[in-house]
Amino acid sequence: MRYIARGLALAGLTLGLALAPGAGSAGAAPAGAESLYAPSALVLTVTTGDETLDGTVLRAVTLDCAPAARGSHPAPRAACAELRAQAGRFEATVTPDPDIACTRQWDPVTVTADGVWEGKRVAYRHTFGNPCMKGTAKGVLFGF
Amino acid sequence: MRYIARGLALAGLTLGLALAPGAGSAGAAPAGAESLYAPSALVLTVTTGDETLDGTVLRAVTLDCAPAARGSHPAPRAACAELRAQAGRFEATVTPDPDIACTRQWDPVTVTADGVWEGKRVAYRHTFGNPCMKGTAKGVLFGF
Repeated sequence: MRYIARGLALAGLTLGLALAPGAGSAGAAPAGAESLYAPSALVLTVTTGDETLDGTVLRAVTLDCAPAARGSHPAPRAACAELRAQAGRFEATVTPDPDIACTRQWDPVTVTADGVWEGKRVAYRHTFGNPCMKGTAKGVLFGF
Repeated sequence: MRYIARGLALAGLTLGLALAPGAGSAGAAPAGAESLYAPSALVLTVTTGDETLDGTVLRAVTLDCAPAARGSHPAPRAACAELRAQAGRFEATVTPDPDIACTRQWDPVTVTADGVWEGKRVAYRHTFGNPCMKGTAKGVLFGF
């Protein structure tokens, strides 16, 4: 069963690559040319401050989870597995580890996730009180 | 001069990789640990309909342009070069080719770009009247 799923994913990938050279041509895409998987492609950022429009974007990485885990995220496989295990609930990835103590200094950093998760649009934001608090997040998704 | 710039970019990349294993630890990032380049990381989508919240996301790809061009976009180098040449003006990439004729049928598709371009947040949307019109766009950015 796993091999069948893998085969389908590879077929989808091959189809995508095969169509790419014609992507800039004038014709509409032929029927059935869409991918066989729901797309999952994200941009994740770490921004100074408690809102994202005026803050400085410190770091930004990409993460693709279908058909394969890839992107400039330092651990794409682990990040995709985590999101899949949480059924796309981003808030589960920022839960603090209660065993790690931080000062209560207010020096906020905000993490964001924008793009598409399993075919649905995503715009997630979470503000940590300071960088230490961000460091206690249990998940790997924003660990970059 | 080009070699110096390249060396700096490589130094930034190496620094980023060297820091990655500690990214999930509890401590705040040490001073000076931020990247030496402004991040450019995008998610690009093609969605049915003339607005993006309810439309079906047909395709979604990622594009990183710093420190190197990469991502699931079929032509990351060309797409990054195009955006750089246009100074990040996404509208320049959707300009139609006047030599290609399309029917006026209303069957809209919307392209989106979300994320960060040279350190600044981006949320771009453009609706084409039908898939043929999307195919006449001169740029390669949304050619996937």
